[in-house]
Amino acid sequence: MKVVRVNLGLRSYDIQIGDGVLSSCGELFRDHKVGSRIFLIANTTVWDLYGQPFMECLTKDGFDVVQLLIPDGERFKNIHTVENIYTYLIAQRADRNSTLAALGGGVTGDITGFVAATFLRGIPYIQIPTTLLAQVDSSVGGKTGVNHSLGKNLIGAFYQPNLVCIDTRSLATLPEREFRAGLFEVVKYGLIYDADFFDYFEANLSTILEREVDVLETVISRCCEIKAEVISIDEREENLRQILNFGHTLGHALEVATQYRTFKHGEAVAYGMLAAAHLSHHEGLVDSVALDRIRQTVLGIGPLPSALEISFSQLLDSIKLDKKRRDDETVVVLLKEIGQTLIKSGFEEELLAEVWGRAVADVSQHG
Amino acid sequence: MKVVRVNLGLRSYDIQIGDGVLSSCGELFRDHKVGSRIFLIANTTVWDLYGQPFMECLTKDGFDVVQLLIPDGERFKNIHTVENIYTYLIAQRADRNSTLAALGGGVTGDITGFVAATFLRGIPYIQIPTTLLAQVDSSVGGKTGVNHSLGKNLIGAFYQPNLVCIDTRSLATLPEREFRAGLFEVVKYGLIYDADFFDYFEANLSTILEREVDVLETVISRCCEIKAEVISIDEREENLRQILNFGHTLGHALEVATQYRTFKHGEAVAYGMLAAAHLSHHEGLVDSVALDRIRQTVLGIGPLPSALEISFSQLLDSIKLDKKRRDDETVVVLLKEIGQTLIKSGFEEELLAEVWGRAVADVSQHG
Repeated sequence: MKVVRVNLGLRSYDIQIGDGVLSSCGELFRDHKVGSRIFLIANTTVWDLYGQPFMECLTKDGFDVVQLLIPDGERFKNIHTVENIYTYLIAQRADRNSTLAALGGGVTGDITGFVAATFLRGIPYIQIPTTLLAQVDSSVGGKTGVNHSLGKNLIGAFYQPNLVCIDTRSLATLPEREFRAGLFEVVKYGLIYDADFFDYFEANLSTILEREVDVLETVISRCCEIKAEVISIDEREENLRQILNFGHTLGHALEVATQYRTFKHGEAVAYGMLAAAHLSHHEGLVDSVALDRIRQTVLGIGPLPSALEISFSQLLDSIKLDKKRRDDETVVVLLKEIGQTLIKSGFEEELLAEVWGRAVADVSQHG
Repeated sequence: MKVVRVNLGLRSYDIQIGDGVLSSCGELFRDHKVGSRIFLIANTTVWDLYGQPFMECLTKDGFDVVQLLIPDGERFKNIHTVENIYTYLIAQRADRNSTLAALGGGVTGDITGFVAATFLRGIPYIQIPTTLLAQVDSSVGGKTGVNHSLGKNLIGAFYQPNLVCIDTRSLATLPEREFRAGLFEVVKYGLIYDADFFDYFEANLSTILEREVDVLETVISRCCEIKAEVISIDEREENLRQILNFGHTLGHALEVATQYRTFKHGEAVAYGMLAAAHLSHHEGLVDSVALDRIRQTVLGIGPLPSALEISFSQLLDSIKLDKKRRDDETVVVLLKEIGQTLIKSGFEEELLAEVWGRAVADVSQHG
């Protein structure tokens, strides 16, 4: 079991990582002064896998646990699901001492966090992520929110959880493609922040793909440590936190252009990272040896759906919408070298199109 | 012109109070580094009174102002109005540098603040309260939110504005009953925090009721100073901020029992303050001389709708719901003497019923 501390003054919290963490949650919750009344939020799929035993485990330890099921799928990550949860909480007389617990992937965590941020002007919540992506990314850092029919994550708040519990055992049942999609976000941490971690990832990729428990604990812990360090310095993404968006400008555009149907988030980010690596090389930052290592490692994680059918012009609309949100230029996170970033803007569309083409070709040739 | 500073570290802000503040808002906004794009939110009634000239004034000063009208009335303070505002903001390509400005009473301010708290995970907003109640209470302190069909203000967030502009001139058009209702919240500040201010209010009540501009500036400034001091110490109502709820336990119950139709908020609070004063006297805190001064001053503000038809048992349900939100006992803010509070719980229902009866009798005999 590992513990990573997120330092945010009065809003600091622990991330508990280990094999079987869920089965000792009662003790953990008590150690972290979680109130006795818990609303356990999960979708039906996750509930069938872990809900009942987890609830029984907490009940046995003296917690008053209320089950709250939400529909499964990103399309339910909206304000209507949030309203239904409010209504249920009120009907059940939830108060400011009640705690919400999000059991599941990123969608469940984002919705639950947003409800916690906005119910009775804020109540405590706990993240219990069961997918690799949620474990290394969305469950840590307090970004909560839901989608608007006109765009993803447009409604939300920064609101930190009181505790994050990561049980690596829950990864055993994760579908292969979902697991690999999470690994693209894992390798991102090495690329942007920690060359040694990238080396470790590169050297241990086959063991990681076998989901060896100790290796998973090491890998997830390091990702959480890095994310915790970054957000401790810049919680609201005013400067440093932007580096976590490495690969996300083009990755997000690819998701939008394909209506989130063709690519898993991590897969789209893989394309974005490859393009950003090519752009970094073009700018004279990453040398060709490093560029090759990045390509081999990213492509080595697993097969990616082809993007040959998607033209760069289809991505442009989304890129322009995205950039509009801060200023008038596209901001791209580049790599100075493996483990170090440089944020730059003002790229010509032609250059972005070119590096995009190289990323698409990399995948196509590898596959 | 007076300036009151709310000290909350990085989230500190100024409250600007004076006659004609609105007409020099352009300069004020620039001094406070307000971004160039402003979404001005108001209901149709307030817009007709102040909207057009204010918008023109800002436009002349180089701001890009977009008008955003919402329906007038507490019944529209809900998540659907919030959703409509989100949709409009997205359609107009609002970004993180856009600023929302709430022009109007408490409903407009609460809705606008909640949208600001939850759009793109938080954007800046400015409060421009035009009612006395909003000027001395809801516009300061960052309590934002909307009603749920099952209860008031159940959905919300603590989210501080970047600036509060209070133009005392806007009170000239305020209906008499609305103005007097605001004064009940004004006298509350003297009672809970500042005996000298209570003396001043008592001595100058007739001038205040004539809405003499300089006196209004003094009175509003002192209320804002007190509220600023309190929330600087306890932003999230964990301890000291509770004193602002003086008169609100029973006042709120009265509003609920009458479905918010019979009493203005301030009027209901007046009943609550009278009852709390009687309770304080019963507990051996406030002496009979002070109790009489409190009754005379509160009743001297203006006539109150009768509560003779409402039995205490009708209030009990709401009291019990309210108390449930923190623990199992009704918490009441009492007065040790004029200007000093004591928070106490564990009162018998019979005693609460008795002091309620005395408050109702006070009003009935005075009227």
